[in-house]
Amino acid sequence: MRYRLTLQYDGTEFHGWQLQPDRRTVQGVLEDSIFRMVGERVRVAASGRTDAGVHAHGQVVTFVLEREWPAERLFRGLNAVTPDDIGIRDVAVAPDDFDPRRSASSRVYVYRIWNARWESPFWRRHAWLVPRRVDIDAMNRAAAALVGEHDFTSFRAATCDAEGPVRRVLVSRFERDEELLLYRVEATAFLRHMVRNIIGTLVEVGEGKRTAESVAALLSARDRTKAAATAPPHGLTLEQVKYEGR
Amino acid sequence: MRYRLTLQYDGTEFHGWQLQPDRRTVQGVLEDSIFRMVGERVRVAASGRTDAGVHAHGQVVTFVLEREWPAERLFRGLNAVTPDDIGIRDVAVAPDDFDPRRSASSRVYVYRIWNARWESPFWRRHAWLVPRRVDIDAMNRAAAALVGEHDFTSFRAATCDAEGPVRRVLVSRFERDEELLLYRVEATAFLRHMVRNIIGTLVEVGEGKRTAESVAALLSARDRTKAAATAPPHGLTLEQVKYEGR
Repeated sequence: MRYRLTLQYDGTEFHGWQLQPDRRTVQGVLEDSIFRMVGERVRVAASGRTDAGVHAHGQVVTFVLEREWPAERLFRGLNAVTPDDIGIRDVAVAPDDFDPRRSASSRVYVYRIWNARWESPFWRRHAWLVPRRVDIDAMNRAAAALVGEHDFTSFRAATCDAEGPVRRVLVSRFERDEELLLYRVEATAFLRHMVRNIIGTLVEVGEGKRTAESVAALLSARDRTKAAATAPPHGLTLEQVKYEGR
Repeated sequence: MRYRLTLQYDGTEFHGWQLQPDRRTVQGVLEDSIFRMVGERVRVAASGRTDAGVHAHGQVVTFVLEREWPAERLFRGLNAVTPDDIGIRDVAVAPDDFDPRRSASSRVYVYRIWNARWESPFWRRHAWLVPRRVDIDAMNRAAAALVGEHDFTSFRAATCDAEGPVRRVLVSRFERDEELLLYRVEATAFLRHMVRNIIGTLVEVGEGKRTAESVAALLSARDRTKAAATAPPHGLTLEQVKYEGR
């Protein structure tokens, strides 16, 4: 029986999603938790990997158990055995052909920036401290230039192993709530480090180091060296994975 | 020279605000930080004490230094020496007669409830887990009954040392953002455990154990034994202290 699981994790204490020997990863801890609860060693597949330090509010994963379990019992049991930095939001039976990565219609990421000259005890693990006051209007003009289908080579990590660099961005927008800036970006799929590279560049726009208008030219340049440095992982959260038509 | 300081703290690792021998308290850590930075042993006075585990987004404190320091240098220096769970939002010179407790016109507290059958890694330190889905409309009808000037004996801790039990509540309202409930309450002043005792009772209203209408009668009864148990401290945050007319 195939199960679909939606989970949250605080990425601070994990070396990312993907299983690695001798390192604490979300996949490793989750597979161990499933084993502890049901006694079966399974392989868990996710909608996508998250890097070390990146959080998730709605990661979607799937796995197959030989024995049949009521979803409700898995939900309760897994919440009881997972550590404090993982929360199981939902467990459901999934169709055999459900693939959390290929079946996804789009992903939503949120990047948080703490825009103040002092570090907040509440946000230091979940938002990037940017001390200089940034111009959110300029950042939003630049962010809007990313919407649509583009070649995102300029924002792609050298280590990215995706087949092509073209992605379709559906939403790209900042909101300010006092010191906290929240960037919401939705795309059919993302390249490796794409959101963090976009943020690095858009913060430079907000600080006046680049113009908002230069971002369209940066996209067309298809040159990673023209963009800013990668923003740190701890501001990033995989907010939601959408499965439209399923 | 008198200084006024606005600070945030995550109350999780503190035994409350007030200085205690051999215990880590916010007052103790703050006084040590000031000593480390300026070399003077001072006594810090706050707008009010917060209990063990309670957080603050905008606690206001004052202290006097013999030597004169630019507020900007104190702001930077104190942020550099305070631990990660304290953040200094603002430092300003204050008039000699400024008293953070007596000069306050009102206080705003926020109480967070995580209303889900699973614990969230993001909210477990800052929201009370209430697994049963609560009726926020009923809770808001009950909350509205608290607005105005009332005798709050029914919601007052036995250990409360305030002179009288009458307080004026200006705002008392719940909002829901998916699983997160946020209760905002503003009053000229609060009795000890007042917000947490109110929350304990209003959650019982939300769970259907009491009617919304019964809360007015509970107020009139002036009997602590008729209200519910005190809600846990970690959901509570001192959001803001207002000084109107100053």
